[in-house]
Amino acid sequence: MTDTSIESAKRAAATQAVSEHFDPAATHVGIGSGTTIVYVVEAIKNASTNPHIRFVPTGYQSRQVIVEAGLTPIAFDSLPPDVMLDIAFDGADEVDEELNCIKGGGACLFQEKLVAERARKFVCVADYRKKQSRLLTFWPTIPIEVAPIAVPTVLHSLRSLGSSTPKLRTTLLAKSGPLKTDQDFFIIDAPFPPLLTTADVAAGKGKGDGSDGTWEVGNLSQAIKRLTGVLEVGIFSGLNGVQAEGLRGEEGDVKGRDVTIITGGQKPVAVYFGMQDGSVEVRKA
Amino acid sequence: MTDTSIESAKRAAATQAVSEHFDPAATHVGIGSGTTIVYVVEAIKNASTNPHIRFVPTGYQSRQVIVEAGLTPIAFDSLPPDVMLDIAFDGADEVDEELNCIKGGGACLFQEKLVAERARKFVCVADYRKKQSRLLTFWPTIPIEVAPIAVPTVLHSLRSLGSSTPKLRTTLLAKSGPLKTDQDFFIIDAPFPPLLTTADVAAGKGKGDGSDGTWEVGNLSQAIKRLTGVLEVGIFSGLNGVQAEGLRGEEGDVKGRDVTIITGGQKPVAVYFGMQDGSVEVRKA
Amino acid sequence: MTDTSIESAKRAAATQAVSEHFDPAATHVGIGSGTTIVYVVEAIKNASTNPHIRFVPTGYQSRQVIVEAGLTPIAFDSLPPDVMLDIAFDGADEVDEELNCIKGGGACLFQEKLVAERARKFVCVADYRKKQSRLLTFWPTIPIEVAPIAVPTVLHSLRSLGSSTPKLRTTLLAKSGPLKTDQDFFIIDAPFPPLLTTADVAAGKGKGDGSDGTWEVGNLSQAIKRLTGVLEVGIFSGLNGVQAEGLRGEEGDVKGRDVTIITGGQKPVAVYFGMQDGSVEVRKA
Amino acid sequence: MTDTSIESAKRAAATQAVSEHFDPAATHVGIGSGTTIVYVVEAIKNASTNPHIRFVPTGYQSRQVIVEAGLTPIAFDSLPPDVMLDIAFDGADEVDEELNCIKGGGACLFQEKLVAERARKFVCVADYRKKQSRLLTFWPTIPIEVAPIAVPTVLHSLRSLGSSTPKLRTTLLAKSGPLKTDQDFFIIDAPFPPLLTTADVAAGKGKGDGSDGTWEVGNLSQAIKRLTGVLEVGIFSGLNGVQAEGLRGEEGDVKGRDVTIITGGQKPVAVYFGMQDGSVEVRKA
Repeated sequence: MTDTSIESAKRAAATQAVSEHFDPAATHVGIGSGTTIVYVVEAIKNASTNPHIRFVPTGYQSRQVIVEAGLTPIAFDSLPPDVMLDIAFDGADEVDEELNCIKGGGACLFQEKLVAERARKFVCVADYRKKQSRLLTFWPTIPIEVAPIAVPTVLHSLRSLGSSTPKLRTTLLAKSGPLKTDQDFFIIDAPFPPLLTTADVAAGKGKGDGSDGTWEVGNLSQAIKRLTGVLEVGIFSGLNGVQAEGLRGEEGDVKGRDVTIITGGQKPVAVYFGMQDGSVEVRKA
Repeated sequence: MTDTSIESAKRAAATQAVSEHFDPAATHVGIGSGTTIVYVVEAIKNASTNPHIRFVPTGYQSRQVIVEAGLTPIAFDSLPPDVMLDIAFDGADEVDEELNCIKGGGACLFQEKLVAERARKFVCVADYRKKQSRLLTFWPTIPIEVAPIAVPTVLHSLRSLGSSTPKLRTTLLAKSGPLKTDQDFFIIDAPFPPLLTTADVAAGKGKGDGSDGTWEVGNLSQAIKRLTGVLEVGIFSGLNGVQAEGLRGEEGDVKGRDVTIITGGQKPVAVYFGMQDGSVEVRKA
Repeated sequence: MTDTSIESAKRAAATQAVSEHFDPAATHVGIGSGTTIVYVVEAIKNASTNPHIRFVPTGYQSRQVIVEAGLTPIAFDSLPPDVMLDIAFDGADEVDEELNCIKGGGACLFQEKLVAERARKFVCVADYRKKQSRLLTFWPTIPIEVAPIAVPTVLHSLRSLGSSTPKLRTTLLAKSGPLKTDQDFFIIDAPFPPLLTTADVAAGKGKGDGSDGTWEVGNLSQAIKRLTGVLEVGIFSGLNGVQAEGLRGEEGDVKGRDVTIITGGQKPVAVYFGMQDGSVEVRKA
Repeated sequence: MTDTSIESAKRAAATQAVSEHFDPAATHVGIGSGTTIVYVVEAIKNASTNPHIRFVPTGYQSRQVIVEAGLTPIAFDSLPPDVMLDIAFDGADEVDEELNCIKGGGACLFQEKLVAERARKFVCVADYRKKQSRLLTFWPTIPIEVAPIAVPTVLHSLRSLGSSTPKLRTTLLAKSGPLKTDQDFFIIDAPFPPLLTTADVAAGKGKGDGSDGTWEVGNLSQAIKRLTGVLEVGIFSGLNGVQAEGLRGEEGDVKGRDVTIITGGQKPVAVYFGMQDGSVEVRKA
C-alpha cells in the first residue's frame, strides 16, 4: 500500500473517533501526541462549538502539537482540582482484545496515564500494526519510567520478574546518554513473553502471577509499579473511565485497595485503528 | 533531662549498634542522615579495619556527613551491579513493635529505601521519641514522594484512601514554594489514623485493607505506591534484609508478586533507641 | 505603625501603579509574586476591558497567585515567539536611585528577568524598606542562581571577586539541604559592599570594575554572570524596556556586544513604594 | 584509509598525550568522554604509580567510561574545595590555530568546561577532522546549553547576534522531544560564519565584535553567555590553565572583570590529533 493510503486511514480513524465520541460542547479535552493525534486535533477544531474549550497536553511534544494548531494548552496541574476532563484522545503502541494497551514508545507514558485517569473516557486512535490479540506480540517491550539512580536495581528486579534483557533507553546521539522523560527520569524497555488476558487466566492458560512464567496484563503492571524506583509502567489496564465512574457512583469512595476506582480508569472505551487497506476498524469495551 | 544526656544517649545507641552489627572487615556501608548518624560514622571509623571500605550515601545531606567526616562517598549508582551493601545504618521518624518504620521527615525517603533494600541488613538508630507501639501515634503523617505535576490528583486519591488533610510540604521560605527532593520531586505529608500491625489484623482488630477505615502498615504502603504519580512511600515494611535473603536462597528468584523478596528487605533487623534517661533500648526482629 | 497601614500602603501603591501604567486593552501581562502583587492582580481585574487578556507567571508561586485569583496562567514558553508582553508587574528586594534592582529573595530571579526583558515595560511595586539610594544598603546579598555541581567553584570565584562570605541558601528544614529553584538549581547569596551607580563612577567615587574594591551595579552583574556555573544574577540593571525598544528601532538589531538591546530591558520604568505612613512614593526613569 | 588505521592513530595520539603530559604521581585527573578518551584511560592505567589516584568525570557518559575501566569515579562536587585537578584529558569537536575549541557535540559542554577550568592543564586528544585553522570551518554550529523555558527568547537573541538558523537539538527518537543535558537543560546549535582569531582582529580582518558581521572567538563566547537563559557556551577560549595560574601568581586574585584568571583557563595546553595516515600531529600553546 502507499503512504498516502496509510495517512488516509489514520485521518479516517481520527475523524470517526471524534465523530462518535466528542461532545461539541466539551470544555476540557486531553490531547496526546503522535502522528495520528494531529488529525484528531483537526477534527475537534471542526466539531467544537465551545469557544471556551481547553486542551490539556500529555507532555512536551503534545504541547507543541496544540500550539502548532493555533490552540492554547493548559498545564495539567493548572486545572482546578475538581475538574474532570470530558474526554482524552491518545495513541497506543499495542492494544489487545480486552483493550489493554502498551504506551510509552514516545517516553510520555506517565503523563499520558495521568490524563487518561482524569478523563471521563479515553479514546484511542492508532494504526493497524497496533491491533493485536495479546500484548507483546508485535511490540517487543514494556516501557517503564524509573528514577535515574535506581536503574541498576530496577534492571536486576526486572530480570527476577522474568524479563530476559531489560535495557536502558538511550538517545541515539553519540555521547548523549540515556533518554530523559518530561520528569527528567529514564526509560527502561523490558521484554516479557506475550501477556495473558484475564480471560486467558479464567480459561486456565496460566496463573498469570509470574509464578509459572506467565503474566496477566494487570498483574505484571502492578508487580513492576511496586518496585522501588519505578514511577510508572507503560501498561494501561484494569477499568476504563466509564466503568470507574460507575463503581464510584454506586458504592462510595473507599474500596479497600482497588486503586483503579479511586484514581479513575486507564483503559480506552474504544480504539479506532486505521487499517492497511484504508478502512477503519473499531474495538469497543 | 538535659540536652547533654540526650546527646549521650544518642551516641551510646550509635556505639552499641555499630558494636553489635558492624563487621570490621565490611567493604560497602550505607549511611543515612540525621544527628544520630554522625555518631554512627564516628564509631565506624574507630571500628573498621578495612582500608578499602566504601560509604554509600542516601542523598545530598548524607553525602555531606560523609565528606565532613573526611571519608569518600561513592554514588549508589556507581556501585558494580552485583554488589550488595554489607550493612546500612539510618534513622527513622517512628518505629512500631513489628519494626515497621516511618521515614522521610528529612525528604530522603526514596534513596533511603533503595539503600536499605540493597543492604544485607539495615540497622536503625533513633531517639526515644521514635519508639512507639503503633505507627502514626506521635509522628503525624506518612511522607510520600510525588511527581510535581501529579500533586492535585494524588492529594485527591489520598483523601479517598482515608487521609483527612494531606498537604504538600513547603520550604518555610517566603515565595520559595514546595520543598524539592533529591529527585526534584515534591513531598506530600498524609495523616491517617494509627496503623494496625499484622498481629492486630490476625487478632481481628480491623480488616486493615482500608475498607473498614483501618489500614495495616504494609497494605497502606502498597495502596499509596500504586497511585499514579507516587514514586515512593515513607513506610518501611514487609521483610528485613536477613529474611529476604533467606527466602531467596531457599526458593529461587521469582515468587509471583512478592516483590519484597525480589528487591530486598526494607525493615531494620534491629533498632537502637537512645532513651531520655541516657540508657539504650533495643528492639530486634 | 500598624500592620493595617502597611497593607493599605501596599494596596495604594499597587492601585496607583496599575492606574498609571496598565492599558485596559492589554493582551499579555507578566505577573510576579509576593504579597504586593496580589493587590496588583486585584487592580488589573477591575481595570481590564479585554476578555482575552493572558497572564504569564514568573514561576511556581506566581502561577499559584494567578490561579487563586480565578485567572488562567499561560506558560512563558507557550507564548508565540513574536509576542511581547504589554507590561509586567513585579516586586523587588531593593531599588537604588537609578532604578537598578536586587531581586531573588524568593528564588525566582531567573524567570523574573526573562519576563521583565520580554515586556515593553516593567513596573515595580514594593514597600518602603526596598527604597534605598544604593543597592546592598539594607538588603545584604546578591542572589545568584547556579548549577548544583558548580557550587564549590562559584563560591571560590565569588570570593575572588570580593564577596567575603557567599553562602548556599538552604530550606530551613532539617536534613532537606539546599533550596531548589524552579529550574532545580541552587541559590548562592553573596554579600558585597554597597554598589556604585554609573553616576558614582562618573563622579570618580571608584572605578567600579572591582579592581579597586568597588563595583558598579551593571559591571558586577556581568562579572558574576560570566562565571562558569552561573545561570543568572539577581541584579536588574542597564536599560529599561522603553529605552531598549527605542534603540532597537533607531539602529537595527545587531549592536556588537550590547546584549541589553538585543534581549530587552531589565530595569523598571517606574517603582511604586508603599510608605510607612500609608502614602505612595514613586521613582521614575 | 581503513577504520583500523584511524583507531591506531587515535590510540597513538592518546598514548603520546599521556606520555608527554601525565605525571605518574598525579592524584586527581579529569576525564572527558568520547571514543579517543577510552585510549587515554588505558594509557593512564599503565602509567600511573599512585594507588590513590582519583578520576573526576565530566558527565554521565564519562562516568560510564571510568566505571567500565574498573576505576572509581569521584563526583566533581565531592572534591575538597581547595583541590585542583593535576590534569584533565578530553576531546573537542574543532580546534583552531590559537587552540580555541568548540565542544558540546556530546551535550556535555558545561561540566567539561568546569573540569577544564579546575585543571592545572587541559590536554586535548582528537582525530584529524577536528584540526582546522578557524572554528566553524568544518563543524557547523556552536552548542549552547540553555534553560528549557528560555529557548524561544534565546533563539531570537541568537538571530540578532547574527546566527541565521539556530536550532533546538532533539533526540532523534520519535515523540521524545529535545535532548536533555546532565543538568536537564536543552542544547541549541547555532551556526555562525567562521570565527576570527585574536590575530585576525589584530591584522584588521574584522572588528570581531559582531558590529561588522564578524566575531572573534572569545567575544562571541562572552556575548552568548550574557544572554538570559544561557548556562554555558561550547567555546573554550581565553587563557589555558598554565597561563591562568601564572597570572594569578604574579598579580593577585582580583583583576577587574578578567574572569578567566579567576576561574582558571579553558583552553588546552596542547592538542594531539590522530591523523588519517596513522601519524600524530600536535599543536601546542
